[in-house]
Amino acid sequence: MITSPSNPRIKLLRKLQLRKHREESGSYYLEGPRHVLEALTTSAPIDYVVICPELLTNPENILCRLNGQLEQDQILVVSADTFKGFSTKDGPKGLAAVVRQVWASLTDIKDGECRWVALSSVANPGNLGTIIRTCDAVGVDGIILLDQSTDPYDPTALRASMGTNFAIKQVKTGFDELVDWKRANNIGLIGTSDRAELDYHHARYPRKFILLMGSEREGLSPEQMKQCDLMVRIPMRGQADSLNLAVATSVLLYEMYNQIRDKL
Amino acid sequence: MITSPSNPRIKLLRKLQLRKHREESGSYYLEGPRHVLEALTTSAPIDYVVICPELLTNPENILCRLNGQLEQDQILVVSADTFKGFSTKDGPKGLAAVVRQVWASLTDIKDGECRWVALSSVANPGNLGTIIRTCDAVGVDGIILLDQSTDPYDPTALRASMGTNFAIKQVKTGFDELVDWKRANNIGLIGTSDRAELDYHHARYPRKFILLMGSEREGLSPEQMKQCDLMVRIPMRGQADSLNLAVATSVLLYEMYNQIRDKL
Repeated sequence: MITSPSNPRIKLLRKLQLRKHREESGSYYLEGPRHVLEALTTSAPIDYVVICPELLTNPENILCRLNGQLEQDQILVVSADTFKGFSTKDGPKGLAAVVRQVWASLTDIKDGECRWVALSSVANPGNLGTIIRTCDAVGVDGIILLDQSTDPYDPTALRASMGTNFAIKQVKTGFDELVDWKRANNIGLIGTSDRAELDYHHARYPRKFILLMGSEREGLSPEQMKQCDLMVRIPMRGQADSLNLAVATSVLLYEMYNQIRDKL
Repeated sequence: MITSPSNPRIKLLRKLQLRKHREESGSYYLEGPRHVLEALTTSAPIDYVVICPELLTNPENILCRLNGQLEQDQILVVSADTFKGFSTKDGPKGLAAVVRQVWASLTDIKDGECRWVALSSVANPGNLGTIIRTCDAVGVDGIILLDQSTDPYDPTALRASMGTNFAIKQVKTGFDELVDWKRANNIGLIGTSDRAELDYHHARYPRKFILLMGSEREGLSPEQMKQCDLMVRIPMRGQADSLNLAVATSVLLYEMYNQIRDKL
C-alpha cells in the first residue's frame, strides 16, 4: 500500500488536474467508480488505476475486475488519507485512474461517420461535457473542437459527460481544415444565429451534417456563418437573448434526431 | 467612499453568499452590471447597491441610472479593494446589490398563468439557473420548487439564469399542495421516466401544464409518477441512461413550445 504523497505516480494525479500537464503528458485524471469502470468496459487506454479499498463500497468486486484487465503494476493500492490528498470530490469513493487521451483526426474518419458537432471556442468545461453527453444520446459520431476551446479532459468536463466521452470521437482542428473536409465529403455545415431567418424547427436537415456552435459569449463569427450551408434560429420569447450553450446545442440535436426518427 | 470591510452593509454582502444567511434575511446578493441593471429595469425590490466607479467602464451612466431610481442612502460607493474583498468574480466589474427575495404562493397565481415547471429536489444551482433561463425563453410562467431543492438565489444559479429570474415567478411548496392545486385548477401534471411508454415527441401536451422533473440522481419517485396525468420518455440511443437535468427539461419545453407555435 502506498501512503506517501511524494510517490511520482501519486503526484501525477494532482498535476493532471491542470491542462498544462495534461497537454504535456497526453494523459488525464479520471475519478469515481462509474467513470473508471466505464473506461475499463470501453477498453480505454488506462495507464494505471489507484484504488483505496477502505473508501470503496465493494472493493473485492472492483479488484477482481481490475485484475482481469490490467497488469499488477497498473494497480496502485493507497490509504484513505493518500486518496483524499489528490481527490477532486467532496466524498471520494476510492477509485481513480490515469488514462491516455484519444484524439481522432479528420483524415481517419470513416464514410459512415457523418454526424458531428463542432464547437468554436467553447469556454466552460461543464458545457462541453454536457454537450458530449447529449451527442452520445442522439447518436452523434463525435465532437470537433476548434480554436481555443476548453479541454474535454478537464475534470469538470469529464464529470458532466458522465462517461460518454469514451463513446464518441474527439477531433481537434482548425476552422479552415474543417471547411475543406466538409466540402470534400459533402457534409452540410449548420450554424445558428438569433438573426437567421429560418426557424430551427422548420428547417430540414441534411443526413450528413456538422452542427457548428459558437462560444458562450460571442456566438459564431461572420466568417464562420458565411461558410455555413444552412443557418437556423432558435425562437425565444422572453427577456433573454440566448440560451445556455449546452441547452441550445441539445435542443437543435434533438430536433435533428426527431426528424431522423420521424422518417423511419 | 466606504473603504472598511467591517461596515455592516459590506459584511452582509459576503454573508449572503451562504444560503443560511439568505434564508434568515430574505434577501440575496447580486453581482455584475448586467444583473443589477436588469434588477433596476424590472423594478426588483433592491435594498441597496454597491458601486465601485474605479472598476466600472461607464460609472457616470450607471450612477445616473441609480440616482434616478434609488434613494441616496441606497447607493454605497466603495474602493476597488473593498469591492474585490466581497466579489465572487475573477474580474469584478464594480456593481453589486442586495435585493429582497420574491416568492409567489400557489394561491396568488392568476388563471392565465398556466405553464409551469416543478422541480423536485434539484441539487445543482447551475442546473436550476439554466432551467430558469429556458423557462423565460419559451414563455413558462414560473418555477415551482419542491422538497429540498437548491436555492434560485444562490450566486451560481443567478449567474446561470442570466437575469431571467426577474422575469418568471418562483414558488416554494410541498408535493401534496401542488397536486391539490393542479386538480383544483385542472392543470395537467407531466412527468418523465426512461421507462415511460410514450415518446415525448409523439405526446400531445395540454394547454395548461406543470412539467415535473425529478432530481439529477433519482428522477421522479413512484409516488410522484402516480400523480402524473401524462408520463413521457426522451429516447436515447447511446451509452448514457440519462441527459443532464437542464438539457432534459429544455428539450421537453421546446417540444411543448413548438407544438404551441405549430398551432398558431
